[in-house]
Amino acid sequence: MSRSLIIYSPAGIVAAAAPVRQAAKRLAALGFEPSVDASALTKHQRFAGDDATRLAAIHRVAQASPAVALATRGGYGLMRLLDSIDFKLLARSVDNGTGWVGYSDVTALQLAALAHKATGPAKPGEGVSAGFWAGPMACDDFGRKDIPGGGDDVTQDCFVEAMTGELEAVGFRTETGFDGLDVVGRLWGGNLAITQAMLGTPHFPNIRNGVLFLEDVNEHPYRIERALLQMHQAGVLERQKAIVLGAFTEYRRSPLDRGYTLKTVISYLRSLTSVPILTGLPFGHVPVKLSLPIGRQVNLVVQGRDAFVMW
Amino acid sequence: MSRSLIIYSPAGIVAAAAPVRQAAKRLAALGFEPSVDASALTKHQRFAGDDATRLAAIHRVAQASPAVALATRGGYGLMRLLDSIDFKLLARSVDNGTGWVGYSDVTALQLAALAHKATGPAKPGEGVSAGFWAGPMACDDFGRKDIPGGGDDVTQDCFVEAMTGELEAVGFRTETGFDGLDVVGRLWGGNLAITQAMLGTPHFPNIRNGVLFLEDVNEHPYRIERALLQMHQAGVLERQKAIVLGAFTEYRRSPLDRGYTLKTVISYLRSLTSVPILTGLPFGHVPVKLSLPIGRQVNLVVQGRDAFVMW
Repeated sequence: MSRSLIIYSPAGIVAAAAPVRQAAKRLAALGFEPSVDASALTKHQRFAGDDATRLAAIHRVAQASPAVALATRGGYGLMRLLDSIDFKLLARSVDNGTGWVGYSDVTALQLAALAHKATGPAKPGEGVSAGFWAGPMACDDFGRKDIPGGGDDVTQDCFVEAMTGELEAVGFRTETGFDGLDVVGRLWGGNLAITQAMLGTPHFPNIRNGVLFLEDVNEHPYRIERALLQMHQAGVLERQKAIVLGAFTEYRRSPLDRGYTLKTVISYLRSLTSVPILTGLPFGHVPVKLSLPIGRQVNLVVQGRDAFVMW
Repeated sequence: MSRSLIIYSPAGIVAAAAPVRQAAKRLAALGFEPSVDASALTKHQRFAGDDATRLAAIHRVAQASPAVALATRGGYGLMRLLDSIDFKLLARSVDNGTGWVGYSDVTALQLAALAHKATGPAKPGEGVSAGFWAGPMACDDFGRKDIPGGGDDVTQDCFVEAMTGELEAVGFRTETGFDGLDVVGRLWGGNLAITQAMLGTPHFPNIRNGVLFLEDVNEHPYRIERALLQMHQAGVLERQKAIVLGAFTEYRRSPLDRGYTLKTVISYLRSLTSVPILTGLPFGHVPVKLSLPIGRQVNLVVQGRDAFVMW
C-alpha cells in the first residue's frame, strides 16, 4: 500500500521552511513517504503564492494522487479559489485513493468538495482512507518546535490510523444530558467562520440529516453566537441530527460581557433548537485534534458521557 | 410638525447613563423633543436588557410612533430578535411618520425591515423623513464627551435635515475612474459583518439593481475580503448597480500581510466583478457619518471625483 504523502500550500503563507522540513522528517518516521510540493514555500502578500500558483498546486497534487495530500497550514486563501477548482479532478484523486487532510481555512476546500460531490461515497466500505478529512496540518501538528515529535501524540496516531484505513471510530468525553443519543447522519463541518462565509454560495453543501461539527479560534462568544444564529435562521441547524462543538479558543473577553460566556451561547442555542448540541469534541485550533471523515455516513452514540462517532 | 424623538436600546448594554442624558440635551438643543425609553438603560449580560425587554422596547417605540426612533448604540443583540419582531407594527410606525435611525448592529433591524417590506415605499415623494435610515446613534454621535456638541457637526446637521425631510441628496469625494457614472437603484446596506451574518436567512433583503453601501470596524482586510467574496459568490454583488464603500477602521495589521492591504482587497474585488465599486462614503464607525435612507430609490451620479446620492 502506497504511503506517499505530498505537503502543499493552498492558503496562507508559510513564514519559515524549518517547520515544513521538520514535518516531512516526522511524517517519514511515522511511515509515510513525504515530498514537498514545488510551490509550498512560495510567498505572495499573505498567501502561499498568488491564486494561480495555489490553484495549480491543488490540481498538481490531485493529478499526482498521493495516498495523502497534507496542507502546510491554513490562514486565508481557499475561498478565493473555489470558483476555479476542478472538483472532478479532485473526485478522481479520491477515486485513486487520496486522503486530503487539513483544518481551519482548509474547511473551505472540504465543504466545497462535499457540495460538488468530490468527497467520495458516504459509505465507502471498510478501511478506506480516501476522501476529505478534517484533521491535522504539517506545520501545526508535525512541525512544531515546542512539542516533542513536532505535534501531539494523539493527533498523530489518529492521523496515521485514518490514513492507513484503520480508523473506524473516534470517541470523546461530552457533557451529561445526552446519554442514549443514537443518530445516523453524514459527518460534515469544520471551522465556523469558514462555514459561515460559505453560506448562500454554490460551494455550501446542503446536508440534511447530518452530524455537523464546528470549531473556531480568535472569535469572541458573541461572534460565535452570531454565526450559529445565522445558521439557525438559515435553517441549517434544524436540518441536522446533531451539532458537535469542538474547541473555541484564544478569544479575549470584554468588560462589557458581564457574565456572557461561551456557555451562555450554547445554552441560548439549545433554547432555540431541539437538535442536540454536544460539546467536547477534540478538534480545533488546539494540539489534540481527531481526524474526521467529511461527508462520511456516521453513527453518533452517547453512553453516559462517552460519545462515539463510528463509520 | 412633530419633533418627538425616542432614544431606545435594541442591542448592546449602555454602560453609563451620562452619554444618554447628554445626547437628549443636545437633541433638544437641535430642536427635537427627546425622551428616553423606559428600558434604555437596562442591563442583562452584554445586552441592554434580555431579549424580551429589548423586543418590547422596539414594539413600544413603534406603537408610540415618534418622529424619530434613535438607538442608543449598537454592539450585538438585534439578530437575536429578528424572528420575533412584528414588522407590520414597524411598517405602521413608518406610515405614521417615524424615522428609525442607527448603524452598526442596527443594520440587522434595517435590512430585516427592508426584507419584510416595513421600510415604506421606494419612492415616498419629496420631504419624507419616515422610514429606516442608516445614520447616527445617541451615545456615539450626540453624547460624546470628547467632541464639543457631543458629536460631529456634519453628522448632526445631516441627521437634522434628514429627520425634518429636507435632505434630498448627499455628496462625497470618491476615487478617480468613475466620472460619468449615473445609475438608479434602491439604496441599502450598512455594516458588512451584519450584512454577511444575515445572508441565507429569511431576513436578508433580496435587492436587485441596488446601490449597496458597506462599512465595518475591527475587521482585518482579509475578513472584509472574505465577507465580500461570500457576497460575490452568493451573487449579491452582481445584482447591484453599484457598491459604495464607507469607512473600514480600527483593524490591526499582521506581520504576515506583506503588502496585503484594504487597497489590495478592493482591487481584487474589482477584478472579480464589473459592478462599479466606489470608495469614500462618509459612513461607518467614524465621527462623520451621513444619514442614508434604506430602501429608497436613489440616483448615484459621479462627476469627476464628486459623487452624489440623490432621492
